[in-house]
Amino acid sequence: MGRVTSLDDLPLRDDLRGLTPYGAPQAPLPVALNVNENTHPVPEEVAGQIADEISRALREINRYPDREFTELREGFADYLGHGLDASQIWAGNGSNEVLQHILQAFGGPGRTAFGFAPTYSMYPLLAQGTGASWKAGHREADYTITPDDAAAQVEAADPDVIMLCTPNNPTGTPMGLDVIEAVYEASRGVVIVDEAYQEFAPHDAPSALTLLEGRPRLAVSRTMSKAFAFAGARVGYLAADPAFIDALRLVRLPYHLSALTQAAAMAALRHAPTMLRMVDEIVEQRDRISATLEALDYTPHESWANFVLFGGVADPKAVWQGLYDKGVLIRDVGIPGHLRVSAGTESETTAFLEALASLGDAPSVGSKA
Amino acid sequence: MGRVTSLDDLPLRDDLRGLTPYGAPQAPLPVALNVNENTHPVPEEVAGQIADEISRALREINRYPDREFTELREGFADYLGHGLDASQIWAGNGSNEVLQHILQAFGGPGRTAFGFAPTYSMYPLLAQGTGASWKAGHREADYTITPDDAAAQVEAADPDVIMLCTPNNPTGTPMGLDVIEAVYEASRGVVIVDEAYQEFAPHDAPSALTLLEGRPRLAVSRTMSKAFAFAGARVGYLAADPAFIDALRLVRLPYHLSALTQAAAMAALRHAPTMLRMVDEIVEQRDRISATLEALDYTPHESWANFVLFGGVADPKAVWQGLYDKGVLIRDVGIPGHLRVSAGTESETTAFLEALASLGDAPSVGSKA
Repeated sequence: MGRVTSLDDLPLRDDLRGLTPYGAPQAPLPVALNVNENTHPVPEEVAGQIADEISRALREINRYPDREFTELREGFADYLGHGLDASQIWAGNGSNEVLQHILQAFGGPGRTAFGFAPTYSMYPLLAQGTGASWKAGHREADYTITPDDAAAQVEAADPDVIMLCTPNNPTGTPMGLDVIEAVYEASRGVVIVDEAYQEFAPHDAPSALTLLEGRPRLAVSRTMSKAFAFAGARVGYLAADPAFIDALRLVRLPYHLSALTQAAAMAALRHAPTMLRMVDEIVEQRDRISATLEALDYTPHESWANFVLFGGVADPKAVWQGLYDKGVLIRDVGIPGHLRVSAGTESETTAFLEALASLGDAPSVGSKA
Repeated sequence: MGRVTSLDDLPLRDDLRGLTPYGAPQAPLPVALNVNENTHPVPEEVAGQIADEISRALREINRYPDREFTELREGFADYLGHGLDASQIWAGNGSNEVLQHILQAFGGPGRTAFGFAPTYSMYPLLAQGTGASWKAGHREADYTITPDDAAAQVEAADPDVIMLCTPNNPTGTPMGLDVIEAVYEASRGVVIVDEAYQEFAPHDAPSALTLLEGRPRLAVSRTMSKAFAFAGARVGYLAADPAFIDALRLVRLPYHLSALTQAAAMAALRHAPTMLRMVDEIVEQRDRISATLEALDYTPHESWANFVLFGGVADPKAVWQGLYDKGVLIRDVGIPGHLRVSAGTESETTAFLEALASLGDAPSVGSKA
């Protein structure tokens, strides 16, 4: 090539000018606890079954996949329970794509999406990607919200799409079903409950799936990236009224889920109990992180997810870099005085806690949030 | 569930109301020649290598995939040749997703996409999905276009995104590089040459890849769905200036290509000569279809792809149904007096030609187009 072209020389959409691509740094550090992955590999015996299922799919890989991924939808319905059937299930290449489908169908130009900040940082980007605007509501200092406050904020914002993340990323905060019911009643738009981390909540904590009956504007999304240790396979899904699913069919690209993805996800679902057996261990490490952080005079927030957001960090950038230099990657999510760490294996968690303790960052009371 | 909810009860975007999902009928017929698949399965020995590569990827499937799919981009650069390197390559879950990325970056609300009709029916849908409008240009009666006419139409339409499909779907028509050059000169928007079927063109036919140098608004897209017999794996890609690739990074979902997709595509690319060895056989069957259709008094259009569009069909609906009833599925693409058939294996092609001959549809000269 001769002269080097820059992005400014191309007829890019005006609203994209000056932006940079979304994404956490991908650095090959020994202990990576920055993107809430499940750091336990898929158990050997299940990996073998998945490979077998994929080998079968390869025999017909010259054909387009089942556009309706019927068998996979049945698998998700069985896994979720609550009397759901395949007509109430949707899936995509990661829950981001599922949320994108929702925003393409119910968002778009002139429409508004809403969530209680701080929450999953992709929501505004996904909304704006469809031309919708993003309105941020607020939470209490401990990141909880009361039903009355939630309803009042939603009524005032009058959004077309409402994103409720529970347990909330990046704070770990659970949201009571009473809040979700209040938001539904106060709204005319679609209400999405993002339960990406639900499997890490206490076993007796009810899912928003129990609210679906009689609420056709409600959808509950999940992912296989976290509890199922399947981030690399890119599989998200949701449950909603069959009419809601029909809306998503209007905006999906035909054959959006490959035969490989369908085969891998079906095999993983068939072995759900084995795939999920590391969940309890992760929860144990998460609680150990919280307890140790408290002992170190940081202020961890209550988490029902596989990560812990902690405040009382005098200099988050310095602590992040100090950990990085010791081979431990965590996440600065942009909340002043805070950092977020995923619960890893026992040894990864130990590596993080020991590295943090060795930094001797003196928590400053003033920076607690 | 109590009362049944319909799509009309949900707050769907107004421009989606009344639409039905895109997609050809998926019917389990013995001879399926309707969606331009490669009907030859992936060779056994390559399928084994792909399965091995996927098994390796499964060991780290708990981690998010390489968001930059660097190794795969290198593989595509090597495969395409012409001195390309990884910085000039992009990929997605099927070429539809690649085209969607382009339209998200350069299309969107208030912008216009353009193509010479009849052409790939997803273009208008992809454009409208981003809020862009679609303008259709026209072709000669034999579906060719002269450089002057193409340039004049593009100048008049003044589009932001121009889709040039060559060989063109659903007509099979090749487009000369002089037409592409003329369109580029006459335009200010990005120019996409969709070469999904390029591997079925004569071996000495030059690709638009030869035009990339010095044309930063030009992109050439390809797919593994056709020549590579990989429709089920959903892998499309393109080559363009590095700045063009940067624009696509702004709109892609993070981690849009799964580790399974990356592994499968890399393994397939390493065995490209084996994967492509059925191309010549398919071209032979395509030319046999054209010759036989002519002998049957139909009017096949010149095709450089793996399918043939033929006119002179008195009653396309009846012929389509007659073939269907005999277990042969082809495509009514909505062009009056025409049907489209993909070139299958020798026996599938024979099944189609014999079934068609047995229908005794008397071609009507009046319906020739």
